[in-house]
Amino acid sequence: MQAKEQTCGPVVPTAQACAVERPLGVPDVRITGGPWARWQTVNRDVSFPLGLARLESEGNFGNLRLASGETTGEFRSPVFMDGAVHKMLEAAAWEVVREPNDRLEVFLTQAGELLERAQQDDGYLNSYYQVVRVGERYTQLDRSHEIYLGGLLALAGVARVRGGGEGALPRVARRFADHLVETFLHSDGPGFDGHPGAELAFVELYRLTGETAYLDYARKMVEDRGHGMLGKGHGGLRYFQDHQPVREAETVVGHAVRAMYLEAGIVDLYLETGDRTLLDASVRRFDDMVATKMSIIGGIGSRHRGEAFGDGYELPPDRAYNESCAAFAAIFWCWRLLLATGEGRYADLLERLLFNAFAASTSLDGSRFFYVNPLQRREDHFEADDPGRRCEWFACPCCPPNIMRLVSSLGHYLATTNADGIHLHQYAASEIHAPVGDGEVVLTVDTDYPWSGSVAVEVRETPAGEWTLGLRVPGWCDSARLVVAGEEVDATSDTQGYVRLTREWREGDKVSLDLDMPARLVRPDRRIDALRGCVALERGPLVYCFEQVDQPAGVALPDLVVPSEAAVRVVDHPDHPVLGRTVTVEVAAGVLPVPAATGLPYTSAPAPTDPAEPTTAVAVPYFQWDNRDGGGMRVWLPELEDGVAHGG
Amino acid sequence: MQAKEQTCGPVVPTAQACAVERPLGVPDVRITGGPWARWQTVNRDVSFPLGLARLESEGNFGNLRLASGETTGEFRSPVFMDGAVHKMLEAAAWEVVREPNDRLEVFLTQAGELLERAQQDDGYLNSYYQVVRVGERYTQLDRSHEIYLGGLLALAGVARVRGGGEGALPRVARRFADHLVETFLHSDGPGFDGHPGAELAFVELYRLTGETAYLDYARKMVEDRGHGMLGKGHGGLRYFQDHQPVREAETVVGHAVRAMYLEAGIVDLYLETGDRTLLDASVRRFDDMVATKMSIIGGIGSRHRGEAFGDGYELPPDRAYNESCAAFAAIFWCWRLLLATGEGRYADLLERLLFNAFAASTSLDGSRFFYVNPLQRREDHFEADDPGRRCEWFACPCCPPNIMRLVSSLGHYLATTNADGIHLHQYAASEIHAPVGDGEVVLTVDTDYPWSGSVAVEVRETPAGEWTLGLRVPGWCDSARLVVAGEEVDATSDTQGYVRLTREWREGDKVSLDLDMPARLVRPDRRIDALRGCVALERGPLVYCFEQVDQPAGVALPDLVVPSEAAVRVVDHPDHPVLGRTVTVEVAAGVLPVPAATGLPYTSAPAPTDPAEPTTAVAVPYFQWDNRDGGGMRVWLPELEDGVAHGG
Repeated sequence: MQAKEQTCGPVVPTAQACAVERPLGVPDVRITGGPWARWQTVNRDVSFPLGLARLESEGNFGNLRLASGETTGEFRSPVFMDGAVHKMLEAAAWEVVREPNDRLEVFLTQAGELLERAQQDDGYLNSYYQVVRVGERYTQLDRSHEIYLGGLLALAGVARVRGGGEGALPRVARRFADHLVETFLHSDGPGFDGHPGAELAFVELYRLTGETAYLDYARKMVEDRGHGMLGKGHGGLRYFQDHQPVREAETVVGHAVRAMYLEAGIVDLYLETGDRTLLDASVRRFDDMVATKMSIIGGIGSRHRGEAFGDGYELPPDRAYNESCAAFAAIFWCWRLLLATGEGRYADLLERLLFNAFAASTSLDGSRFFYVNPLQRREDHFEADDPGRRCEWFACPCCPPNIMRLVSSLGHYLATTNADGIHLHQYAASEIHAPVGDGEVVLTVDTDYPWSGSVAVEVRETPAGEWTLGLRVPGWCDSARLVVAGEEVDATSDTQGYVRLTREWREGDKVSLDLDMPARLVRPDRRIDALRGCVALERGPLVYCFEQVDQPAGVALPDLVVPSEAAVRVVDHPDHPVLGRTVTVEVAAGVLPVPAATGLPYTSAPAPTDPAEPTTAVAVPYFQWDNRDGGGMRVWLPELEDGVAHGG
Repeated sequence: MQAKEQTCGPVVPTAQACAVERPLGVPDVRITGGPWARWQTVNRDVSFPLGLARLESEGNFGNLRLASGETTGEFRSPVFMDGAVHKMLEAAAWEVVREPNDRLEVFLTQAGELLERAQQDDGYLNSYYQVVRVGERYTQLDRSHEIYLGGLLALAGVARVRGGGEGALPRVARRFADHLVETFLHSDGPGFDGHPGAELAFVELYRLTGETAYLDYARKMVEDRGHGMLGKGHGGLRYFQDHQPVREAETVVGHAVRAMYLEAGIVDLYLETGDRTLLDASVRRFDDMVATKMSIIGGIGSRHRGEAFGDGYELPPDRAYNESCAAFAAIFWCWRLLLATGEGRYADLLERLLFNAFAASTSLDGSRFFYVNPLQRREDHFEADDPGRRCEWFACPCCPPNIMRLVSSLGHYLATTNADGIHLHQYAASEIHAPVGDGEVVLTVDTDYPWSGSVAVEVRETPAGEWTLGLRVPGWCDSARLVVAGEEVDATSDTQGYVRLTREWREGDKVSLDLDMPARLVRPDRRIDALRGCVALERGPLVYCFEQVDQPAGVALPDLVVPSEAAVRVVDHPDHPVLGRTVTVEVAAGVLPVPAATGLPYTSAPAPTDPAEPTTAVAVPYFQWDNRDGGGMRVWLPELEDGVAHGG
C-alpha cells in the first residue's frame, strides 16, 4: 500500500469528491487544553496500556498466534476477537501521528507482523475461521463478521500509511482487502456480512489508493444490502439492516452500531460517486432518528435486547442502551454529513454526542468504560449480577478500542476548509494549521469551552488575500457576541448555522466569540411516554444529571422534583476534588414525602397533594457521572406544577 | 405409583400440613358459564389439538424417539423440548378428569409409552443428554434443565394418578423421580439445576405417595439454592436465584418464571414442614414484588433481557415483558399463599393475574398465544422482525402448554374448604361439590361475572348442622350488598377480605352478593417513572385498554388524553361481533394537536398550551385485546389537568 500525498486523517474525500467541506489531518490540529486534551492524556497514559495488556490477557493475540500455527491451544471467544486488535492498531496509528510513542510503535510493528504470520496465502485472515471452523469461511456471513473485520483492518492500514508508517500492517490490510474484492466483487451472492462497517472502510481504501475496485466493492455492499440475502440470522433481517434497500428504508432499525456504520458508508459512497439518492435517503433517516429515536445525551439504541433501536419515541431513561460504540459510530455519520452538506446542525449533533454520550463512556482517569449509557440508575440497580458501573474491559471488547481510536484522532473533527477558507465546527483550546489558497493559515484557539462560552481565535499566520473564517453558532445558543479585531460585529448565524467573516486577515488579528451559556431547563416532546412530566438541565453543549452523592443529606433522588420556573445557579469549580475542572448547577428544587409502599402501586384514591419541601438539588455534567460511588443518578426529574407533582 | 385416596387437584396438602384452607379437586367444581367456561371450551377444541400437532411437527416427540433408539436423525432444539410433552401430559390428565376425551386418553397412553421406551435403565430421562451429549448428564446443571424437567414429568404423573389413570406415565415419572432422589438427595454437590420448579413437584409427589424422601429432596433443593453452587451460568447468579439463600433474599430477582416456581415450592415446603421462616421470607418478597415490581395487569418481569425482573418501580408499559408463564407461575405462588394463610389478598391478586395477564395470553379463539404481554403497543412496533402479535407457537414452547394445564384445572382455584365450611375465592358460574363435616355440600353459582358483579349462590345439598359460607369481597370493591335467604345482611368483609355466613343451611337457601362495579380511573404511584402523569381504567377485576381500532376516525392513540375527572359510560355488549360477550367503557377524553417532528424532541421553549379537542375514547377489557388488527394499544393514557397535558 503506497501513500499518495494526502491529508493525514480518518476521512479524506478525494479531490473530485462532492464534499462541501474538506477535513484537516490529525497532526494539523493540536489540542492544547480543556476536556479534549485531558481525554487525550488519559487515553495515552491509561487506556492504551490497559488495552494492550487486555489484548494479551483476553486472548486476542493468542488467537492470532493459533492461526499463525506458532502455538497450540484453545480459541478464546467471541468470534470477532481480531477486531479489537485491528481497532487498537488504527487507534495507535493516529496516536503516534499525534505525538511520538515508542511503545505504540512497537505494538504497530509487532502486531502487524503477527497478523502477517497469521494471514493465509490467499490473503484471508480471521483467527476464528482459521482455528475453529476450518473450511467454513464465508459460510455463515450473517454472523461471521469476516468482512467487517477486513474493513477494520483496512482502516488500520489506511491510518498507518497516512501517518507515513510502513511495514507489515499496511501489507496485510491491503492483501486481505484485495482478497475480499477478488472473492466478492463479481459474485452473485451477498458481498457483505451481518455487521456493516466495511463499506466506509473500502471507500477510504479507494481514497488512499485511487483503486476503483475498492469503491466498486463498497458500492456492491451498499446495493446488495436490504434484500434478505443473508437469511434471518439469529436476530431477524432488521437486526443487520437487511430488511429494505438503503434507498427505501425510512427509519433506522435494528442493531444501532451496525445501522450507524452503514449510514456512514452510504454517505461516503455518495461523496465519491455523487449519487444523490444515497444522500437523500440517509438524510431522511437521520432526521427521523434525531426527532424520534435519540436520547438527550445523543445516545441511540433504546433496547438492551438486540442492542437495538426501539420504536419511534421509545426512549426510556433507565433502560436506554445507548451503547458507547453507537455514539462513536453516530459521530462518524454526522461528520460525513457535515462534509457532504456544510450544515451546522450535523456539527451541533456531533458536539452533543461527543460531550455527552461519548464522553461519559470513559471514567475521568481513563481506566474504566461504560458499554451501556443510561440516563437513570436507581439505587437498587442490577443488570443481571452487575450493578451498572463502568468496567475495565468486556467479554465483547468493542467499546474501549473504539473510544481510543476516536480520542486519538479528535483533532480531525474540529475544523474544515472549503473554497472560501476555514470553518471552526468545534471549540477547544488548540492550534490549527490549514491550507488556504496556496498558503497556510495558522490559528490558535484559546477557550475554556465548554465550561465557558468565550472563544478567542488568533490568526498566527496567513497568506495574502481575502479568505473566510466561519464560526459555528451552536443551535443551543440563543445569544452570541462577536468582536473582530477590536470591533463588535453581528453574530447572527446564517441558515447553515455559521457566522462567516471574510476579509484580508493579518497576523495577530483576534476574533472573540462569546456564546451566552445559561443553565436551561429542557422539556421532552409529549410523545416520549417514558419522560412525561419531567425536565432536564442543560448548559452549553452539556447535559447535566443529578447524582445521589451530591444531594443534601436525607434527600433521596426519587423524591426530588423541579418546580416549573425553578431558579438555577451556575457554580464554577476550577478544581473540584474529584471531578477536576467542572461547572455544577444548583437548582431550587423540592422534596416530596415518601408514599407508603403497601399493596399494588395503583389506586383509584385521589392523588396525594402533599406540598414539596424546598431543597437545593445539585447537578453535574452527565459525562462526569459515576466517578464517585455507585449510587442513584437521574438526568430527568419530575416537574412540579403549582406545587403538586403529577401522579401523586 | 399408587394413588392414595385423595383430592383430585394439582395442589393437595397432606392431612398434617399446616394449611388454613383445603383445595377442592378439578372434578369437584364444574364451570358452567362465563369466560372461564369459554376458555375451557376453546382450550379443549382448539389449543389441545394445535399443541398435539406441534409436539409432532416441532420435533418434541421426534427427540424422544431418537432417545428411545427407534429412529435416527437430528435432535431438534432447544434443550428443554421434553418439557412441552410433560406439561401437555399434565394438562391432558386434568382435561380428561374434567370431561372425557378419547383423543387425550390416546395421547396420555401413547406419549407415556414413548417416554417409557426413551427412559434409560436407571430411570434417567432427557432426550437432549441421551442423544446429543451422551455421557455428559448432570455436568451442566446451570443450563441443562434436567432436574426441572424431571419435576414437570412428576407433576404429569401425579395428575394422572389423582385422576385414576394408570399405565406408563406414572411409572416413568416415579422412576425418574426415584433416580433423582438416589443421585442427589445425599450428594454434597448442588441437588438442583438452573431452573427452579422441581421443588414444588417433589413436594407434590410426597403428598401423593407419602414417601418422605421426596419431601427431603425438595427441602435439599430449597436449602442448597442461594450459595452460588451452580456457578454464574450465562446470566449470572441472580438469573436463577442462586445469589442469596431463600431466607435472606429481600426481593424477587432474575428470570421471573423461575423466581415464581421457586417461591411456590418454598411455600409448599412450609406447608408440609411447618418451617415458618420459609413462609415469612416468601411473604416478604411477595409484598415487595406486589408493591414495586408488578404491572397493573398482574404481569411481572420488566425486562426482555434475561426475561427478568427489573429494579424496584421499573415498570415500563411498552417494554414490559410480563411473560405468560410468569403470570401462570405467579398464580401458583398466590394459590399456595392463600392455602397457607387464608388471606383474601392472595385471592385478589390471583384474580387480577387470571383475568388480565394470564387471560390475555390466548386469543379469543384459542389458536394463538402471547409470550410477552406489554401494556402498550405503538403503531410502528417491531420486536426484531416481529410486529408483536400473538403467534401459534414458539421456538421456546413454554407458554402454550402452561396455559393449557391451568385452563384445564381452573376449577381447582375457585373454592376451598376449611374447618368451618366453604370459601368462595373466585366467582364463576359453576357447580361446586365440597366435603363439609361428614357430608357433602353442593352449591350452584349463577353469575355473569366479571361483566356483572351480581353473584347468586344456591345451596343444593347440605348435611345437617351449622357451617360457614365465606364469600370474598374483592379488594377493588368499595361497596357490596348481601342478601341471604331473602334478608339483607351486612356485607362488610373481615380483615381477611371475606364475609362469613354461619348457619344451619337448608337446601334451596339462596345467597345473593352484589359487588358494585363502576368503571374507575386509576393512578400509579409516583415512583413508577414510566407511568408518570398517566391514568388507567379498571372495572371490577378487569383492567381496560384502548385499541386504535375502537377510536373515532382521525383520533390517533398517541394524541389521546384523559381529563382528571373524565366522565365514563359502561356499555354492555351481550354479543359483540368479534369479542363476543364483553363490556366496553366510553371515556369523555381529549385529543391534542400533533406537534411538529423536526430536530431533537427536547426543548427549552415554553410547553405548548393548545387545548385538547373533546372526543370519546373507547376502552375494551385488556384480556380481549389484539383480536382484531395489529394496531396501537395503550393501557395508560396521559392525564389532562386543567385542560393542558403534561410535557406539552
